[in-house]
Amino acid sequence: MPSTQKIVMYDLAGADPDRRFSPYCWRIKLALAHKGLPVETIPWRFTDKAAIAFSGQEKVPVIVDGGRTVHDSWRIAEYLEDAYPDRPSLFGGAAGRGLARFVNGWTDSVVHPGLFRQVAADIADHVAEQDIAYFRESRERWVGTTLAAFCADREDRLPEFRRSLAPLRQTLAAQPFLAGETPSYADYAVFGSFQWARCISPVRLLEPDDPVHAWRARLLAAFDGFPGKATGYEP
Amino acid sequence: MPSTQKIVMYDLAGADPDRRFSPYCWRIKLALAHKGLPVETIPWRFTDKAAIAFSGQEKVPVIVDGGRTVHDSWRIAEYLEDAYPDRPSLFGGAAGRGLARFVNGWTDSVVHPGLFRQVAADIADHVAEQDIAYFRESRERWVGTTLAAFCADREDRLPEFRRSLAPLRQTLAAQPFLAGETPSYADYAVFGSFQWARCISPVRLLEPDDPVHAWRARLLAAFDGFPGKATGYEP
Repeated sequence: MPSTQKIVMYDLAGADPDRRFSPYCWRIKLALAHKGLPVETIPWRFTDKAAIAFSGQEKVPVIVDGGRTVHDSWRIAEYLEDAYPDRPSLFGGAAGRGLARFVNGWTDSVVHPGLFRQVAADIADHVAEQDIAYFRESRERWVGTTLAAFCADREDRLPEFRRSLAPLRQTLAAQPFLAGETPSYADYAVFGSFQWARCISPVRLLEPDDPVHAWRARLLAAFDGFPGKATGYEP
Repeated sequence: MPSTQKIVMYDLAGADPDRRFSPYCWRIKLALAHKGLPVETIPWRFTDKAAIAFSGQEKVPVIVDGGRTVHDSWRIAEYLEDAYPDRPSLFGGAAGRGLARFVNGWTDSVVHPGLFRQVAADIADHVAEQDIAYFRESRERWVGTTLAAFCADREDRLPEFRRSLAPLRQTLAAQPFLAGETPSYADYAVFGSFQWARCISPVRLLEPDDPVHAWRARLLAAFDGFPGKATGYEP
């Protein structure tokens, strides 16, 4: 039974505690706003493993809703949908939920890696001091080189990244949001990565006449514009 | 008002009139089966432009449902959903329809081009004699080289194609079909391209332990197995 207390969420923050840059946390902040559920976010750093040890793992987002702890953005989205069925639906039914999982997976395997290639070198400028060594070492192990070298040809790769957005672009040329007329979790899944990018990098990722650009602007302005007002660069 | 007569569909056929290999026609044959609507297919060749001139354009699928003519697979799917609302839903609601458009676009921009690189050189072996010159000339203009040259390194590209299926694979590792527990139009959109490939090429596209392989087998067996019994190669 969900509680009537405010939901608490551990939210990745940078050196500036107002710079909240986790793409997965952004998914959930938009999902909570969609459900009309107030949240108290607790700024968290990569090395604060102890602070979320109660969740049984080491990554954010973690939410605490009364007595219930849930981690992993997809699991949290499903939890919110099931625990608050009378609030606006995040998925629009069973088929919408199934297909949102596909969009979530497309984001994780295509959009996010493509964006990482564009912005990885800029992240360390904003990571909290206590996190820098951990951040740099773990990410450089993933990519097998320095982050600067990893991003050295990012400008040459930008057209390829933009081309990889073809299914998103094609869908948004036909309808304002991924599931049709109104925003839903599928949008928040993709948008979270664009929001992450703008929170930590000045790179201009999208052409102004791209339907994806207009869609991102609609989501930056959603929910009284809190995503657009968040600390970061102009998108 | 949909008629109670059998729907007629123009369906791309090869030299063997039983070899029906259009991916877009396969989407609609599965959609019609899903809706439980009997269909009479008329074998059609690329150069039979005159036979479908009444539709105002030159490509299949074209369906005729009583007095109504509809072309373009996505538009036909929407037509069937709206004209037959009491039959099993192809989309599972508005959100499912919106997101199916995304999967449709992902198929067209990622899966289908990746498969074309694998099978393009095999298609001409099965195209009807009157179509061969048209087929070869138009496709070689698209790809800017001969189809044999275009496919020369297809084996080297197979791992890259398989990797491009990551969002499909990840979704199907969690649930049996793209929209969840039961097949829907999103599955038929992707499956149509795999079925096209197996109708005209012996290339083994998927590893047997890939969740995508098991999903394809479920769809080959769907609707009394008519997709699996259709003329083509073992998948």
